Amino acid sequence: MELGSEDKLILITNDDGLYAEGLRTLLEVMEEFGKIVLVSTIESMSGMSQALTVKTPLRVKLLEETDNRRIYTCNGTPTDSIKLAVNQLLGRKPDWVVSGINHGANASVSVLYSGTMAAALEGCLYGINSVGFSLNDFSRTANFRPCKKYIRIVMKTLAGQSLPPGICLNVNIPAVGEDDIKGIMICRQAKGNWKEEFEKRKDPMGRTYYWLTGMFHNHEPEATDTDEWALANGYVSIVPVSVDMTAHWYLDDLKQRFGA
Amino acid sequence: MELGSEDKLILITNDDGLYAEGLRTLLEVMEEFGKIVLVSTIESMSGMSQALTVKTPLRVKLLEETDNRRIYTCNGTPTDSIKLAVNQLLGRKPDWVVSGINHGANASVSVLYSGTMAAALEGCLYGINSVGFSLNDFSRTANFRPCKKYIRIVMKTLAGQSLPPGICLNVNIPAVGEDDIKGIMICRQAKGNWKEEFEKRKDPMGRTYYWLTGMFHNHEPEATDTDEWALANGYVSIVPVSVDMTAHWYLDDLKQRFGA
Repeated sequence: MELGSEDKLILITNDDGLYAEGLRTLLEVMEEFGKIVLVSTIESMSGMSQALTVKTPLRVKLLEETDNRRIYTCNGTPTDSIKLAVNQLLGRKPDWVVSGINHGANASVSVLYSGTMAAALEGCLYGINSVGFSLNDFSRTANFRPCKKYIRIVMKTLAGQSLPPGICLNVNIPAVGEDDIKGIMICRQAKGNWKEEFEKRKDPMGRTYYWLTGMFHNHEPEATDTDEWALANGYVSIVPVSVDMTAHWYLDDLKQRFGA
Repeated sequence: MELGSEDKLILITNDDGLYAEGLRTLLEVMEEFGKIVLVSTIESMSGMSQALTVKTPLRVKLLEETDNRRIYTCNGTPTDSIKLAVNQLLGRKPDWVVSGINHGANASVSVLYSGTMAAALEGCLYGINSVGFSLNDFSRTANFRPCKKYIRIVMKTLAGQSLPPGICLNVNIPAVGEDDIKGIMICRQAKGNWKEEFEKRKDPMGRTYYWLTGMFHNHEPEATDTDEWALANGYVSIVPVSVDMTAHWYLDDLKQRFGA
């Protein structure tokens, strides 16, 4: 793959592994927008958040190279994949980092645990236009086709003008037919958390072990400006996500409490 | 360990493992404030961010029980430890989640990768007063004694009134003698990122591998209201950290761009 001066360079990753249908769909759309470097793991890396691999060495393997794309596997997390690509695999800074399409939504506080969104956050830390895409359907037979139209809209809308520094987009697509998607809603992250999160079992030796499980609990189901509401009502939700986690509105109160 | 109705219950974890000096220091201070349940891993879990263990079962082992404390090991991440403790190991919701003392600072964007801060974020998602403590010294011989005074101040200051929902504190302590610490500064997270992040090597079979490494780059070294500035100038930095990652200030602009 050679890059001309006019070519856009798009870095793709995900957290469901190289053979996930969502990744294949994203790759198909992205080939309309530029040349591709894709770095992903063979196995899924769901729930890895922005984890880094610091205790074991990272390895990368070039699986495929054509005029328009290079596809690598890597043994690290989605965040490692972005870091490795930007620093070691790409000849220049990419124009885009896109991540997904995740199998399952990353709305509300799921953004904190999501490997998909961590990759987008990592991209914008490097000053690259970055977007994470997720479909609200965990099933193996999920239909990713309706996502394509909205991915194109996001890419075309952002193409003219970069996102502000330190901000990426979290795009969640409802799991309904294309004709039933009502449009795009710009939203804030809903307040919520996960509850009842373990199944306790005994192994054949009689020893206890636990599986993480749970249900998302929306703390404000009535609010109509959240990503959860948008998804539940057939809209594509887009949340601008910031790498700055400071609760700025609480700084003055906290200064008073500490007399500092 | 039995809990009286007056007893405060404090849940402790860290990401440097059970035998870290920072954890021992935090435990010593916390025993002044209540009864303790400590859950940590044997090995360090640095850089795990808010990762969840979803593909392997979790196991927990009670190592020690006295009238005042229970100490468990767990094979999961810091976030798993908090989830397991809150849902399976504690008889009731704890009054505090405290995490650390991390060996090394978690200022600026390091909050995104930090297992220490992920545990505090997890605590406040459960509606528990939560604080992560870090010392700006990675060395094995780091002196954690000066931290004690400031941990006590934080605990006493927060004792009267809970933090707002979805907010925890990120406390970083400079690596200087107690007399050289100038006091506490309430700060925002500095803008920055990590650069030049890999060392490329060959294994004995001639195959390439990479070690993650790098240097933090402060994008606003002149700003005097950031955690980086506070640490560099001998202050304890306290940043209120929010689980809401929405860039609220950018919502209106984004609506205009998307016409949504």
